[in-house]
Parts: sequence; C-alpha cells; structure tokens
Amino acid sequence: MDLLLLSNSRNHGQELLAHARDEIDDFLGTVRRIVFVPYALADHDAYTASIASALEPIGVRVEGVHRFPDPGQAIREAEAVFVGGGNSFRLLKTLQSTGLVEAIGPRVRAGELRYLGSSAGTNMACPTLRTTNDMPIVQPTSFAAFGFVPFQINPHYLDPDPTSTHMGETREQRLIEFLEENDVPVLGIREGGWLRVHDGHARLGGANGARLFLRGERPRELAPDADVSFLLHAEPRYDVGPEQRS
Amino acid sequence: MDLLLLSNSRNHGQELLAHARDEIDDFLGTVRRIVFVPYALADHDAYTASIASALEPIGVRVEGVHRFPDPGQAIREAEAVFVGGGNSFRLLKTLQSTGLVEAIGPRVRAGELRYLGSSAGTNMACPTLRTTNDMPIVQPTSFAAFGFVPFQINPHYLDPDPTSTHMGETREQRLIEFLEENDVPVLGIREGGWLRVHDGHARLGGANGARLFLRGERPRELAPDADVSFLLHAEPRYDVGPEQRS
Repeated sequence: MDLLLLSNSRNHGQELLAHARDEIDDFLGTVRRIVFVPYALADHDAYTASIASALEPIGVRVEGVHRFPDPGQAIREAEAVFVGGGNSFRLLKTLQSTGLVEAIGPRVRAGELRYLGSSAGTNMACPTLRTTNDMPIVQPTSFAAFGFVPFQINPHYLDPDPTSTHMGETREQRLIEFLEENDVPVLGIREGGWLRVHDGHARLGGANGARLFLRGERPRELAPDADVSFLLHAEPRYDVGPEQRS
Repeated sequence: MDLLLLSNSRNHGQELLAHARDEIDDFLGTVRRIVFVPYALADHDAYTASIASALEPIGVRVEGVHRFPDPGQAIREAEAVFVGGGNSFRLLKTLQSTGLVEAIGPRVRAGELRYLGSSAGTNMACPTLRTTNDMPIVQPTSFAAFGFVPFQINPHYLDPDPTSTHMGETREQRLIEFLEENDVPVLGIREGGWLRVHDGHARLGGANGARLFLRGERPRELAPDADVSFLLHAEPRYDVGPEQRS
C-alpha cells in the first residue's frame, strides 16, 4: 500500500498544495497521471481545474473522475488517485452511491493504486469518518470508510486556544468524547503535516507535528517526522461505550 | 407546543444556565419538576446533578430519565423535559435506542410536554441533526430528529474570525455547504441567545442575536429579540443538491 494523507490542501498564505508539492512528487514516483475525486465540494469541474493547476508545476496530469462515463473503470485503469477535501459526509455519500468505495478500496489494498488524500480525503483512509471536523450536511448510508489504516486521523488538528471565550467544545474535547465511545487511536495531524504509509511503515512529514490520542491516556505530542509504524498494528474497537469504573 | 431552545448551557465566565435561568423560570410557569435527558454526555449521574444544582435557585426539581426503569413512562408522566447538550450523535443514537424519540415527540407536538433544549438538545428540535457542530463519534440509525420546527438551528453560532490563520472551514462556510445540498432555512443562534416557540409564534431571546441563512441569499442579521414566526411556515427540502445554474 502506498498512502499519502495530507492534513490540509492549503497552508495559510500559500498556494493550493504548495506546501506538499515536493512530497507529492516523490510519492508519485514515475506516475505522472492522477485521477482526482472532487465529490467533497459542490463544483466538480472548478475543483478539478484548481487541483490540475496546483500539480502542473511537477508535470502531473489531473483528470476528474466525474468526467468519465464509468468512474469505476477510470479507477481500474489508474495508477494513482487523489481524493480531495471538502465535506466528508458529502464525499462518503457520493463514494458510496457511485460505487467508488468498491472500485478504489481493493486496488489500494492490493498495492496497485497509490492513494493521495487531503483533509476529507484523508478521513476516508480511516475505518470510519467518525473523527471528521465536518458538518453532517447529508447522510451517508454508513460511516464506514476505506479503512486503509486501522486507526483514526483528525485532519486540521487545532490546539485549544486558551484565550477563547467560545463555549463550544475544543478539538481535544471532541476527540476525548470520541474515545469515550470508541477504543481506537486518533492521530491529530496539524495543518502543514501529513502521514505517509508504505511497505508496513508509517511516518509523519511536513511541519507542525501531530498529537496522538489513546483511550485512557493523556494526549501525546509527536515530532514532525515521527515514525508511527506502531499504529499500523492497532486493533480498533468501536462502540465500546464509556470505560467501566472500578 | 411550548419550546425553549438555548444555543448554549453556559456563558463564558458564568455558572451553568445562569444566563437563561429567568427565561427557564418563565417558560416552566407553574411546573416545578422537569425530567432531564443526559444522554449527550457520558456520565449521566454527574450531568443530572449539575443541572439539578443549576435549577435549584428557581425551585425546580430535576430527575434524570436514565434513573427510571422505564424512561418512556417517565416522559409520559412529565409536564416538562430538558434535553441537555453534549454530543448530538451520541444523544440522537441514545434517544433512538431507548425509544425516547417516540415517547417525547408526540407529547410535545400535542402541547402536553414542554420541551427545553440546549445545544445538542436544541439540534434535536429540528427535523435533522444536519447542522450540529459535533463530531460524529457514533452512528445513529438516522439523522432524523424530533422536527418540532420546520427549519434547522445551528447552536453556538460563531462569526468568522478575520485574524485566524486556520484553514478549516468557518461556521459560515459549513452552513453554506449545508445550503448547497438542502433548501432549508438555518438559524445560527449565537451563544447567550435562545429561541422560544409558543402558540404559533417564534421569538429570539437573550443576548447577541442570530444569523439567518437561506439558500441563494446572503446571510441576514437578526436582532436579539427578533420575531421569527415566519420560519414556522418554512417548507424544508432536504437533499436537493446544488442549485442548477442557468
């Protein structure tokens, strides 16, 4: 399996994908054509065009999967797929209704298709979308996603702001609520960072590092280039409910 | 129908429910016992105890629905119910699994049961939870909620921060995404505010006002005491997809 999972597609003050372009170049190797899945945003053509512009400097040709009469066939003939960010619920619902869950999943797992995701596209690489930050604007058939990794990622991870007067939950509080109901590691990747998975190894990259949340433990800080291969051996347990107190 | 829908249960720097205690007192009238639904948080006893303390100054007795052998029976014998905030997905899933959707809904609609909600409990009064801010930590059977009002509320509404460097969607962007997929009014109630519905009338209350989002229109500012009875005549249309461009 070859995965590159970006926390975000655009750093503040930078062009789309500029912060990750070198890593994408390296990740794609000799592959210079990528099929783009724009379903997380409403305007598929405009989204595909902006991604095409962003990857043009490294000579990568981008084709929107929505333009093919048979999107599944487009995936079966591709060597790399890029699932873009936006709204995770809309993305997953459309992956389900177009049959792309079945078209993409097995080929990535078989090592035949490189998987690049950003934000919502990174959420899809997890067993479920349960650690998305997005609003549930539509209802997918199920929260189950590709499950290329056996843990959850929280993209755009944001540290609590000690000066805030807003009383809504912080990201940390939301993830702790997730861990009340599920015994599954959560990797909160800050903007500017990513996770690369290859050949049984997983390593963080980019800037700003990540925070690891494990049930019953204090959150742990991870360096920007930390080896997190141990997470590939996680045994996720969903819906276990609150820990029993003794 | 008698509804009091709070954006939040605690204002910054204040005690739990202190900002809304007078309004709750008025809303309950002569009723001095309320059944509390604590399912949005993990620790039901602690949550119920904190709500009981918060309403003790106005002489309201609070009983946790989770403590009754038959929660549905507790609802059928109550004159007022309070559905507390926390995680909306956990709340809705538990309302469904305990049968409280069926126990609470008809009695509120018949005017036999006053409905007090805050945050996630306010989301439940809408047709769906699709405008919650919460993380989908568990999967409810369906996103359908009580639907006491024919529009959506976004509690804890937060204006965009022009100084932010975070690239995740603002609340406004999230609600605009909601309106790309659904033709349903959304009332974003800022912290400190609430909506009171009685006898075919709906009026904002509390501080800080609200923002109204309608598909295809610019967001509109509403005064803290605005009459929004017109929203009770909304004809919500879900899953209509992006507007067709001519």
